[in-house]
Amino acid sequence: MPKPIITLTTDFGTSDHYAGTMQGVILGIAPTARIVDISHDVQPFEITDGAFTIAQAYPYFPKKTIHVVVVDPGVGSARRPLLAEMGGQYFIAPDNGVLSMIFTRGQVKVRHITNDHYFLKPLSQTFHGRDVFAPVAAHLAAGVPPAKFGKRIEDATRFPFAGPVRTARRNWTGSIVQIDRFGNLITNFKTAEFGPRQPFELMAGLSTVSRIETNYEAAGMGELFAIAGSSGYFEIAVGQGSAARVLGCGVGAPVELRVL
Amino acid sequence: MPKPIITLTTDFGTSDHYAGTMQGVILGIAPTARIVDISHDVQPFEITDGAFTIAQAYPYFPKKTIHVVVVDPGVGSARRPLLAEMGGQYFIAPDNGVLSMIFTRGQVKVRHITNDHYFLKPLSQTFHGRDVFAPVAAHLAAGVPPAKFGKRIEDATRFPFAGPVRTARRNWTGSIVQIDRFGNLITNFKTAEFGPRQPFELMAGLSTVSRIETNYEAAGMGELFAIAGSSGYFEIAVGQGSAARVLGCGVGAPVELRVL
Amino acid sequence: MPKPIITLTTDFGTSDHYAGTMQGVILGIAPTARIVDISHDVQPFEITDGAFTIAQAYPYFPKKTIHVVVVDPGVGSARRPLLAEMGGQYFIAPDNGVLSMIFTRGQVKVRHITNDHYFLKPLSQTFHGRDVFAPVAAHLAAGVPPAKFGKRIEDATRFPFAGPVRTARRNWTGSIVQIDRFGNLITNFKTAEFGPRQPFELMAGLSTVSRIETNYEAAGMGELFAIAGSSGYFEIAVGQGSAARVLGCGVGAPVELRVL
Repeated sequence: MPKPIITLTTDFGTSDHYAGTMQGVILGIAPTARIVDISHDVQPFEITDGAFTIAQAYPYFPKKTIHVVVVDPGVGSARRPLLAEMGGQYFIAPDNGVLSMIFTRGQVKVRHITNDHYFLKPLSQTFHGRDVFAPVAAHLAAGVPPAKFGKRIEDATRFPFAGPVRTARRNWTGSIVQIDRFGNLITNFKTAEFGPRQPFELMAGLSTVSRIETNYEAAGMGELFAIAGSSGYFEIAVGQGSAARVLGCGVGAPVELRVL
Repeated sequence: MPKPIITLTTDFGTSDHYAGTMQGVILGIAPTARIVDISHDVQPFEITDGAFTIAQAYPYFPKKTIHVVVVDPGVGSARRPLLAEMGGQYFIAPDNGVLSMIFTRGQVKVRHITNDHYFLKPLSQTFHGRDVFAPVAAHLAAGVPPAKFGKRIEDATRFPFAGPVRTARRNWTGSIVQIDRFGNLITNFKTAEFGPRQPFELMAGLSTVSRIETNYEAAGMGELFAIAGSSGYFEIAVGQGSAARVLGCGVGAPVELRVL
Repeated sequence: MPKPIITLTTDFGTSDHYAGTMQGVILGIAPTARIVDISHDVQPFEITDGAFTIAQAYPYFPKKTIHVVVVDPGVGSARRPLLAEMGGQYFIAPDNGVLSMIFTRGQVKVRHITNDHYFLKPLSQTFHGRDVFAPVAAHLAAGVPPAKFGKRIEDATRFPFAGPVRTARRNWTGSIVQIDRFGNLITNFKTAEFGPRQPFELMAGLSTVSRIETNYEAAGMGELFAIAGSSGYFEIAVGQGSAARVLGCGVGAPVELRVL
């Protein structure tokens, strides 16, 4: 029987003890659990960055994986801890929208975690990753049924994550939703939806991109191009460089698409 | 029988091969060991940062966990490698004070690791994490009894880690001992000791904090407050920002407490 | 029977989902595999940095370990994916020179991975770490024989990684090949070859180093010295500081050795 897998996605960084301490808590309760760090470098407090990170990673994990997502600026306030089931996997996170993208991917059952029998005591005000989310994940991995943690709710926080808006017959306004380590600008234009429309112009910052490539090396140094990214969205990239730096664009910047 | 757990706390960073190489050494000797990275981003050479990191994390690990702590500016010099037992857990580290906080947490047995049978050969001058600490931890995990590694000693290096000093009937001078990723300033005022004394004024940098909150979202943007931190010390925080930046304080800066 | 070990060395960083997603793919195919992160912070696109990182780490892993190395600026282009066997270990990487140092360490068998039965579908253009390298490693760990993945080839890309050049009877010109987190400058002068030649002068940047030490603490603050590094090469270091900063040298900078 395969061992339960617990993944961690947080904004705790790696220079403090936070991420490691969560693993200690998990192993004390569920000694056979496999723990995978998806990222501890979500931008601090950036719920949408956390939402994208887990949404991109979860499809590649086996059924029954338990994903713990702690981007939690409201820790200690009244925001609820949640346990969600979707597509045969579990998601444990604060009710602040960080699971919004997960909620759009399939039928979802959400519970409000209220059973403090499964929390660490004393419960701190500031580190529910350690005191609430990690132990709940570990007890779930150890076989406690979801219903034990709390009742079903229907009003979990959902952010819209709007797709591009059509502004004319051949024009759409989208946006940059993430920038990866290489400086590639990930847009909200889905490749499945916008893929074959050529020729086109993508306008971001002060630049216009009208070229599409199938690999990052096809363009010369400094040349801008669009490429179908691995998460299903078009990216803007630049040959041997950082598109974020070249275009001076950040997350949230608008991207205009014009199909010619 | 649960598998042995070995944790790693180092200042090796994650851009070199150092942390991964230690794991290779461990798995070669103790193939069933579970390895947990507490942090490899301890400030380079900062023994007190390493001391705080392991002291905050270890209480959350199961009995028999083996904690390897390598912040070791004196590697290759005469400083001794240590194996300590405290509270049913093990600690392997250089004798430079990095275990000082651990030594204050309970009855401790310390050994000077001298049995080079358990070291990698040839022994390098500069990477005892790989050649001494990792293999000793792995042999311990594999069942070698502590006494095999070396003799008991009583003179291991201990830093004082002084608490706040009382300077008047209602005044104490403490300090900032750590700054976390979010810029929260962790003081050495224990919540258990100073918790209920209100009203109060905490002075750090050029600012005075006289407000206490139970969560980080309770204060408006830029407003300073104190909060009971998850490691048992008061922290100074700022609404939606970094207290370290707002106050311009670093580790070691004094914090004055006045109970009114 | 020990569980298969898969190591990951990439330039994906840790702020995106990339490294975690690869682990999900692996655990879906080879649920018992042990996964070790050697580093995800190889300098972006720097094939030689990746080549050094894996070459320094692999000797410390047990036989049959599977090392996945993804520094892959040409992802999506015609560059071949490779599976190499050397010294009883396996190496999976793009054919861009990142295994060059591995190829010099012993008899090597290299295969061109062509059997897309073992790839994820649909195959993305930009994330072969997830779609090619991780699943191939996992299938190998799960028992698929190497020959199933593709045919032997003899023309894999090899970079020279030249050692120092002798420029006079007592003079050599070498270079800085890596800078570690502490700012130590790792040269290509092998300690086994150049070890006992004293007195000497090492010239790098505008400075001359003529002192050798056996530990980093032996020199006073700001004093330059050479030291035999843990990977078998001489390093240039500075007491309580960063030699990279003091000398203003980067990777590739020349280092002159004069034996007096």
